[in-house]
Amino acid sequence: MDELKEIIEELDILIENHDYYAIKLLLKDLEPADLSIILEEFPKKIGTLFRLLPKDLAAECFVEMESENQEELLSSFTDNEIKEVMDELYIDDTVDIIEEMPANVVKRILYNSDPETRKIINEILKYPDESAGSIMTTEYVHLDENITVEDALKRIRRTGLDKETIYTCYVTSQDRTLLGYVTAKQLLLADDETIISDIMDKNIIFVHTHEDKEFVALEMSKYDLLALPVVDNENRLVGIVTVDDAIDVMEEEATEDIEKMAAMTPSDKPYLQTSVFDIWRNRIPWLIILMLSATFTSTIISSFDDKLAACIVLNAFIPMIMGSGGNAGGQTSVTIIRGLAIDEIRVSDVFKIILKEARVSFLCGTTLALATFVKILFIDYKLLNIFTPFYPNNVDILYFDPNVIRIACVVSLTILLTIISAKLIGCLLPIFAKKVKLDPAVMASPLITTVVDVLSLLIYIGTASLFLLI
Amino acid sequence: MDELKEIIEELDILIENHDYYAIKLLLKDLEPADLSIILEEFPKKIGTLFRLLPKDLAAECFVEMESENQEELLSSFTDNEIKEVMDELYIDDTVDIIEEMPANVVKRILYNSDPETRKIINEILKYPDESAGSIMTTEYVHLDENITVEDALKRIRRTGLDKETIYTCYVTSQDRTLLGYVTAKQLLLADDETIISDIMDKNIIFVHTHEDKEFVALEMSKYDLLALPVVDNENRLVGIVTVDDAIDVMEEEATEDIEKMAAMTPSDKPYLQTSVFDIWRNRIPWLIILMLSATFTSTIISSFDDKLAACIVLNAFIPMIMGSGGNAGGQTSVTIIRGLAIDEIRVSDVFKIILKEARVSFLCGTTLALATFVKILFIDYKLLNIFTPFYPNNVDILYFDPNVIRIACVVSLTILLTIISAKLIGCLLPIFAKKVKLDPAVMASPLITTVVDVLSLLIYIGTASLFLLI
Repeated sequence: MDELKEIIEELDILIENHDYYAIKLLLKDLEPADLSIILEEFPKKIGTLFRLLPKDLAAECFVEMESENQEELLSSFTDNEIKEVMDELYIDDTVDIIEEMPANVVKRILYNSDPETRKIINEILKYPDESAGSIMTTEYVHLDENITVEDALKRIRRTGLDKETIYTCYVTSQDRTLLGYVTAKQLLLADDETIISDIMDKNIIFVHTHEDKEFVALEMSKYDLLALPVVDNENRLVGIVTVDDAIDVMEEEATEDIEKMAAMTPSDKPYLQTSVFDIWRNRIPWLIILMLSATFTSTIISSFDDKLAACIVLNAFIPMIMGSGGNAGGQTSVTIIRGLAIDEIRVSDVFKIILKEARVSFLCGTTLALATFVKILFIDYKLLNIFTPFYPNNVDILYFDPNVIRIACVVSLTILLTIISAKLIGCLLPIFAKKVKLDPAVMASPLITTVVDVLSLLIYIGTASLFLLI
Repeated sequence: MDELKEIIEELDILIENHDYYAIKLLLKDLEPADLSIILEEFPKKIGTLFRLLPKDLAAECFVEMESENQEELLSSFTDNEIKEVMDELYIDDTVDIIEEMPANVVKRILYNSDPETRKIINEILKYPDESAGSIMTTEYVHLDENITVEDALKRIRRTGLDKETIYTCYVTSQDRTLLGYVTAKQLLLADDETIISDIMDKNIIFVHTHEDKEFVALEMSKYDLLALPVVDNENRLVGIVTVDDAIDVMEEEATEDIEKMAAMTPSDKPYLQTSVFDIWRNRIPWLIILMLSATFTSTIISSFDDKLAACIVLNAFIPMIMGSGGNAGGQTSVTIIRGLAIDEIRVSDVFKIILKEARVSFLCGTTLALATFVKILFIDYKLLNIFTPFYPNNVDILYFDPNVIRIACVVSLTILLTIISAKLIGCLLPIFAKKVKLDPAVMASPLITTVVDVLSLLIYIGTASLFLLI
């Protein structure tokens, strides 16, 4: 990080001195990911700086930029410059960029691509947004099953430069049906005369074009793959997804899940690049929904006002009970949501999970109930004198007013029952959501908390009526 | 998934019929990751089934198993069998397994390794748990800078079989100082006579052995690397981290962050494999801490009991105010925590973030305050009659008791102030945690909620005293 800062400072001075030769030397050895960060620090000079880069580095750096900057650069480019950059890009990167550009820029990009590329881009653009097809590249190595390793290596040498990966080569029949794969490692370690079909692995893992990209990433992580082939409905190979794109998908999906769990609409832009209005729009719907659903708690509290007024000190424990219930339910729901997301938990495990949560919640509930009981008697009653306006305290540390003991029992019992129901709701809602094909991530703390709030209030008022005869 | 189920059913029948030949045929073509799931369905037969696998598949499947099953298998193995499995494994996998095994099993593994391997294992075991050194492998290809591409390819052919990857080869000097790297793609596409130093890339990204493994994964994702070299304090190459291990780290770290954000101690085992007691132990500390910290809210409520009793309907809105504050603060904190984790946000962005959150929170707060105002007047007052015991309602839809309007104003103003402070706390606490090198993930909803609960109560009582003169 400090290194980047130094480069930015140096660049600032060089720009002021118009020392373009030195700038060229400074930039030419940087990593594309760093370079994009550096250039974005000079929004007014970005076009000039970009034109000082070697062609391949310029293209790689372009891919890493924020779409606003890409758009600005593209509009400043001549047709020829667009062509030069686009020629250097892999198809999947071109498609990613096109997806973010306005119509007139897209038109210029397509106009400056050769007809073959244009056709492929248009094909890929047709796949749904979250599908394997939308993130695949068509630049892979395919081999005939009857050729020798020597011929295969020759073919790779001839065509490999433009392929996104040459490390997994796909063996296909004449009509492009996927037959198997060989790795570059196998090819390098095999004898030159070996026939591909003798060393190819026929147990090949593949996905269909319409498969969810999250599933693609999970499969690649599970089977430790560097590339995953994508086939169409006739099982013909149409593209591959490479591991670097799978990593991006994993990161995005984790971020999206985390955002949904915190009651937000996921944003597809980094936080600092998102406008205040967009952030507001992502956050406000759930805030309003959850606020409205709190109507239930207000109604319950106000309709039991007479009971609560009869023993007004009970009010003091409502936030603690609701808080504990929400936290306990949140813990369980988040565990289940994440387990479902990374395929560690399946819907069919529902009974195992209920049994487990029943036992965990009983343990947690009992512990917390005991802690609450002790806390109410010694901290709230003896130390903080919360009960003093209603029930007499006493210097004798072991004197407890029977009413206070009874209230402590009511609160503790409420805690126990609340924790048990919160944890059961916390595990059932996400599984239910998954079962009916909703997104389990929405069933996290905020929603669980609102449900548990209502439930814990009813339990509290119920136990209080029963034991305090109010 | 259905496919796995079918295989398990088929296997069940074959086991009953003692048809070991058919079992062998059934298992030999499966993927290691699937195979481990299948074998774990037959805990009593796992040793028998395992011995039916081809040697290399057996080893790869062994790596994928849960550590309990690995331990059981290892104890049932003869010394020779241990040796056979360990010989097939990559060093980093062996180390992962050893880290989970009890001392006597570790002893047997080390006893059955050759002296060279034993030395390397002991070296890697010395690195701290979360460091780059602990996840690296020592099986990489290193090349001399003066040799030709032809010689390099020969060297790869000779030694490549046991290397975890041959796709990135590291160029080192005599004393193993890292000079650069060449990819297998470069080697394959270059002329045979080219000298390595002419095509090697000297801008090499590397990490030190003590670097956090989370940083390793971030670097690999940022620069799209298939392998990242690890060097010691003298910049000598000691190992590499491959992308499959980086993916595992990313997945683990995301899960850990999510667990921490939901107030749990992260577990290193999958949920279904974690015992009820361990789950309890991971969840109870935060539940107790948060419950105890709710003492503040109880104390505040009880010390203002007289004020709340003077206008008892105010009680009904406490959960809604606390809930909205908690949700708003949770949204912000989670956004910032995730941004910090994936390096999209830096501590130095703190002023930008505060400015942004101030504006977002003002927008969200105003929207929510207006919604609350309308809701209280039309839903709570007119529709649900929450105020009826205290203030008269009227069939005229446009008649509002001035006291009710005043209460609605107090609640709405409280909401506005609560949202603003919740969002500011929600962004400041994680950044502060990062700054003082604590884990930002802990500063998520549950903790924020507890802080916001206290604050929102004080704001509520403050505004109520001011505007209702109670």
